[in-house]
Amino acid sequence: MRTLITHIAELTTNVSEQGDLCGTRYDAAVLIDGDRIAWVGDAKDAPSVNAAGDATVDASGRAVIPGFVDSHSHIVFGGDRATEFEARMAGQKYAAGGIRSTVAATRAASDDELRARLRALQEEMRAQGTTTVEIKSGYGLTVVDEERLVRLASEVTSEVTFLGAHVVPAEYEGRAEEYVDLVVGPMLDACAPHSRWIDVFCETGAFTVAQSKRVLEAGVAHGLLPRVHASQLGPGEGVRLAVELGAASIDHGTYLTEADVAALAGSDTVLTLLPGVEFSTRQPYPDARRLIDAGVRVALACDTNPGSSFTSSMPFCIAVAVRDMGMTPAEAVWAATAGGAAALRRDDIGVIAPGARADLLLLEAPTRIHLAYRPGVPLVRTVWKDGSVS
Amino acid sequence: MRTLITHIAELTTNVSEQGDLCGTRYDAAVLIDGDRIAWVGDAKDAPSVNAAGDATVDASGRAVIPGFVDSHSHIVFGGDRATEFEARMAGQKYAAGGIRSTVAATRAASDDELRARLRALQEEMRAQGTTTVEIKSGYGLTVVDEERLVRLASEVTSEVTFLGAHVVPAEYEGRAEEYVDLVVGPMLDACAPHSRWIDVFCETGAFTVAQSKRVLEAGVAHGLLPRVHASQLGPGEGVRLAVELGAASIDHGTYLTEADVAALAGSDTVLTLLPGVEFSTRQPYPDARRLIDAGVRVALACDTNPGSSFTSSMPFCIAVAVRDMGMTPAEAVWAATAGGAAALRRDDIGVIAPGARADLLLLEAPTRIHLAYRPGVPLVRTVWKDGSVS
Repeated sequence: MRTLITHIAELTTNVSEQGDLCGTRYDAAVLIDGDRIAWVGDAKDAPSVNAAGDATVDASGRAVIPGFVDSHSHIVFGGDRATEFEARMAGQKYAAGGIRSTVAATRAASDDELRARLRALQEEMRAQGTTTVEIKSGYGLTVVDEERLVRLASEVTSEVTFLGAHVVPAEYEGRAEEYVDLVVGPMLDACAPHSRWIDVFCETGAFTVAQSKRVLEAGVAHGLLPRVHASQLGPGEGVRLAVELGAASIDHGTYLTEADVAALAGSDTVLTLLPGVEFSTRQPYPDARRLIDAGVRVALACDTNPGSSFTSSMPFCIAVAVRDMGMTPAEAVWAATAGGAAALRRDDIGVIAPGARADLLLLEAPTRIHLAYRPGVPLVRTVWKDGSVS
Repeated sequence: MRTLITHIAELTTNVSEQGDLCGTRYDAAVLIDGDRIAWVGDAKDAPSVNAAGDATVDASGRAVIPGFVDSHSHIVFGGDRATEFEARMAGQKYAAGGIRSTVAATRAASDDELRARLRALQEEMRAQGTTTVEIKSGYGLTVVDEERLVRLASEVTSEVTFLGAHVVPAEYEGRAEEYVDLVVGPMLDACAPHSRWIDVFCETGAFTVAQSKRVLEAGVAHGLLPRVHASQLGPGEGVRLAVELGAASIDHGTYLTEADVAALAGSDTVLTLLPGVEFSTRQPYPDARRLIDAGVRVALACDTNPGSSFTSSMPFCIAVAVRDMGMTPAEAVWAATAGGAAALRRDDIGVIAPGARADLLLLEAPTRIHLAYRPGVPLVRTVWKDGSVS
């Protein structure tokens, strides 16, 4: 079965042309065949599709972009922290320790309760245009509970990250090294089979650089690929460590030193910015302009979680990145699609090109600029995931 | 036909109880009869509805709030200013003169083109929970075109505002007084029959205080009620004038002096804050905390327009008001509902109480806090307008 989307007012392919990051085409067409993109070109040259089951979509006046690749989320959890959010907005500071309240609620929830919440959030994301989502564990923090979380996550995505080293659980207070022993031992053994990635929260109040290195290296030894949470609450050594280990991404980067920026610019490690976190914790926004100008490759993700960022809207993150981080609309859309794909080391998503997965979005808007120009407005009209409308 | 909405986890009535601005009830129920609210109380006391055509909605785990009252919009226009937005985000400053490009596009558009855009935007707003919208003219600036705009606006709302004095059109460059003569003469004669409100943009680059006063007084003499755009681009005399004339609202208030705050606090004039404007023009956010603490009554509105704020999302405005203006979630939700009603001098909307219009929203969330806690996420699940699901 084939679908021709034609007369696309503005098509973002992310197949970079000279001077145009987004590989933009006008009055364009895309042919989907099965779950893949089969052809991309000018509308006037579009192949005809008229076999039984074929469909044509007239996109006149509307833009098409690749599906969003949200490379950082924590959507398997129990409970809610609306009251903590309200208190924070009244002046209370965000601290990593708040994670523990979600850990308690997650441990108390049944598989079915966690699965229902996870699926609802994934559907909410999909309706807003997210066609690929990475999901982390990290609210279980026991062998049994972390295994539950990565297993449940693996039911809805292939991008599962084992984050047993999210925070030291209350019962290991003052015994962080012992907890790391658990993470790199039986917990990793239980979780690695369901996971693709190993992650650690390298931050004051969470794990030291030495502990973080132990966790990441143990994960790599189990066949997982490294990514790192770092520099969210203050400057630290996490970026250096991530680059040294060839991590696919370092996430947050709210507080980066000049040395961090230089290290990232000379590396294959993507910097994943999470504007929802700064928005919902009132932290200062990282200056994406400075980072991009320095040569750092930037992705945008939602970091959907009940503590520091409960948005699931990639368009919202794009709008904030443009308004408050100095990105152009084109850079922000690239970061939310191709950037996310790079942060997941994927070349089959984040682009609209022959052979890529047919994950794409028809916008209720003539340009991708509208995603920033019309903040908060649901502009994703149609979502194709693997070639099917979802 | 009656609808019982029952087991509402959190009901915002805006019927203020001691110390609770929002008149919050838990495990509550609301009975709709025709286009009005018939009864509000505890779920356990809810009347039974089982006549033919009656319906019951179980809101377990979800919150209900009054429909949003968006008391400031400019949604009858032609064209688009995405490119201007993109240039502004790259560093260009916002200036009132940009309005003229929309004026040219609006004049060039047919009634049907304007109507199609207007209806699409109104439907977009409705889907996001806006059950009452005020609509201004101001992109015509000729007698014929302003009459077209208020007439088209009156097809979709009873809250129509004549804003012929939006900006001095290009053809009157250097002849502002002559343009004001036109506004208060034949233009007002043509527009008053379709309008409820008279408005003026009292700002450097638009109209002086003396000109603004002439416009407002002429409108009042034609039976219209005054409201004022002021202090958007810098401090000015607009607030003083608005209070002096007993305007229902002064809108923007980005730059307020201490004297402005004192004047507003001692008046019946509502201050309508428009967070979308500061967001999309990178202007400083007004400090709503200071204003509310000083006794000023505050409303929130979108100011949907193609230049300075193209959001149509009241939830987005709530989230920004909480994050960047220092409002509590309860204050922001009140301002977006009861505050908007006060800014339109309406007591039949913005509350959930017997006799009020049955305009209410079922949220896909357990509390109203989630509107700020989950920025950008479409959380409005069901919209009732005049008792009907829309």
